[in-house]
Amino acid sequence: MRVTRRRLLAVAASGTGAIAAGGTAAASTRSRTAREPFHGAHQAGVTTPMQSHLHFTSFDVTAIGAAALRDLLRAWTDAAARMCAGHPLGPVGGDPQAPPADTGEAYGLGPARLTLTFGFGPSLFDGRFGLAGQRPAALADLPAFATDHLDPARCGGDLGVQACADDPLVAFHALRSLARIGEGAARARWSQAGFDRTPGNAPAGATGRNLMGFKDGTNNLDASDAAAMRRNVWVPRADGPAWMAGGTYLVTRRIGIRIERWDASDLDEQETDVGRTKVVGAPLGERREFDPADPAKLPPDCHILLANPRRPASEAERILRRGYSYSDGLGPGGRLDAGLFFAAFQRDPRRQFVTIQRRLAAHDLLNEYLVHTGSALFAVPPGVREGGFVGESLLGR
Amino acid sequence: MRVTRRRLLAVAASGTGAIAAGGTAAASTRSRTAREPFHGAHQAGVTTPMQSHLHFTSFDVTAIGAAALRDLLRAWTDAAARMCAGHPLGPVGGDPQAPPADTGEAYGLGPARLTLTFGFGPSLFDGRFGLAGQRPAALADLPAFATDHLDPARCGGDLGVQACADDPLVAFHALRSLARIGEGAARARWSQAGFDRTPGNAPAGATGRNLMGFKDGTNNLDASDAAAMRRNVWVPRADGPAWMAGGTYLVTRRIGIRIERWDASDLDEQETDVGRTKVVGAPLGERREFDPADPAKLPPDCHILLANPRRPASEAERILRRGYSYSDGLGPGGRLDAGLFFAAFQRDPRRQFVTIQRRLAAHDLLNEYLVHTGSALFAVPPGVREGGFVGESLLGR
Repeated sequence: MRVTRRRLLAVAASGTGAIAAGGTAAASTRSRTAREPFHGAHQAGVTTPMQSHLHFTSFDVTAIGAAALRDLLRAWTDAAARMCAGHPLGPVGGDPQAPPADTGEAYGLGPARLTLTFGFGPSLFDGRFGLAGQRPAALADLPAFATDHLDPARCGGDLGVQACADDPLVAFHALRSLARIGEGAARARWSQAGFDRTPGNAPAGATGRNLMGFKDGTNNLDASDAAAMRRNVWVPRADGPAWMAGGTYLVTRRIGIRIERWDASDLDEQETDVGRTKVVGAPLGERREFDPADPAKLPPDCHILLANPRRPASEAERILRRGYSYSDGLGPGGRLDAGLFFAAFQRDPRRQFVTIQRRLAAHDLLNEYLVHTGSALFAVPPGVREGGFVGESLLGR
Repeated sequence: MRVTRRRLLAVAASGTGAIAAGGTAAASTRSRTAREPFHGAHQAGVTTPMQSHLHFTSFDVTAIGAAALRDLLRAWTDAAARMCAGHPLGPVGGDPQAPPADTGEAYGLGPARLTLTFGFGPSLFDGRFGLAGQRPAALADLPAFATDHLDPARCGGDLGVQACADDPLVAFHALRSLARIGEGAARARWSQAGFDRTPGNAPAGATGRNLMGFKDGTNNLDASDAAAMRRNVWVPRADGPAWMAGGTYLVTRRIGIRIERWDASDLDEQETDVGRTKVVGAPLGERREFDPADPAKLPPDCHILLANPRRPASEAERILRRGYSYSDGLGPGGRLDAGLFFAAFQRDPRRQFVTIQRRLAAHDLLNEYLVHTGSALFAVPPGVREGGFVGESLLGR
């Protein structure tokens, strides 16, 4: 089947009338009804409490011209709003002589706190869409870092879409559907699935652990702290350009962990490299997880000190991390191909991620165990009002 | 670090004394405490109600001799019992001058109904371990099928280990830990992660859907029906060999779905190919999902009729399917690399899976949309008594 632009829009719109997800007669559990609002001043999926599953896809736009890009973003926005509300995109059955409007694998499931977050890569501003003059200065290409081992097939992209949900099937369905709607207008460039522990399978409020076995996120920015988000995450109007006011910048890095080598290293080395104790997660020299780190007691090249030197000036560098562990089967020699899909939101990557990563790339004791294989940067435009579309502030009506 | 056999056993045993998982002070939810018994007449993970996440790894044994194989299986058994009970393998902290006994990423999490299921591939009986005379006749190599597009790197293996849990981090930790314990004795050959919907995110008892959007499992054997399990899944003593009594045979197939082509096909074709309606899941010509299929009303080459011709003779062919959807990122052209990791347990693959798959490979209307890229067969020995080890009936004490 060839998908024309007309068909694309027809498929995206065919569910209007809001066919509710099936199975509504059954008793609802919390997860069956838990949804995150799609519309708002900011896009969801940034300060939203983390869901258990990630499905990220970076697309290249194959259509030409601003109108085609606008059509794509409108169709994606409509589909995203519907899916985040727990509705299928249209009938799973319906006309026998046409492909079903919804592919069906998530039919009857709750929205599972689905969020879809859209970002614009630097390449979107190369002139194909008349946007060359609108590129934010903060969307500067990331520099090369000393420790990069980047695979071009895992880097960049015109449009990045982050799907997060508490059900892997819901996250998969969301991105499969967006790819389908975009067929003929956008082609998937790379994709990454990720996972976190299952909600309810840890004590409430406990900090999660990464695949190195350490607590990860103890000193992360608090996404519920609106003042901190204004300072370090959301782009204020004064920063410019105007279309990014209320937006943010997303950096993703696929960071492989040399699991077998790490697992063979002594506890003492692991704790020295990280700068925290493994069981409790306390900064070295302290007793409790949330005790403030004292730089004087930390190894100068440990990860947490290089990531955040704990100086007044480094407060402005802090980022909102929202990464997921990944496991992509086996690499050479039967070794695990697993690690962290790092994702961080920030007001200006030049001042924040780049500054931090330069220090880490130069000195981080953990570098022996890490390999950065993917990298991308996206301008995440502000949120969508009812009836609007993602990127409306950039692309107009 | 070089891992000697002595070290391997020391690591596996160092947690004796049962250090309980951390965070026990917090209130437990159902999922925080939900565990499946590891010991029993049969291995867990066969008739166990499906968990939401799969992590399967096939290993080749690199050690030589029956004693080394026995040591490995003993160490794996001890670790499996501990992890399925929700305990770490030993201290996450502990001796600063040694690698932690437990890698830590699942520390503080509940067991999440973890099951670990071990199987022996045909290659294990090639003579390296003195087992050539013990190979079951039913463990005959699978024949080539007309539709095979098998990648040798995704096929076979001496030892297959299926980890299933309601938390992806718990499933990952289990197989990472077994790989670590086996270092120097077994090397991972291939690995596959899979997922199903999140428990609680669907109406109770609703049949799940595969990535084709159809209900999958409506007419599966009922794992809670002990008589059906005796007839079609568990190997009776009379079948032989004696060491397999109470065991079963596992066939796995990595079946890719040509997602984009399927999504472009009309509803009528999809339903004809499958033999069921898409929304309800009723056999064609019937109204309700669980109405018996009438072969006279079904397209002769539809999937459900070829899989199960609904003749008295085909009752003996029926298998217990326990597959998971998978999504492995992108294939060529940005297409989704996703499908079904088919897994089925049965009493004799020659009479069951092979008979079914021969019909499907020859005629299944779905073949246009499917590609089998991985295949494996394992003899799953009977369950483990307390103090025993997996394969004890084969390898003695």
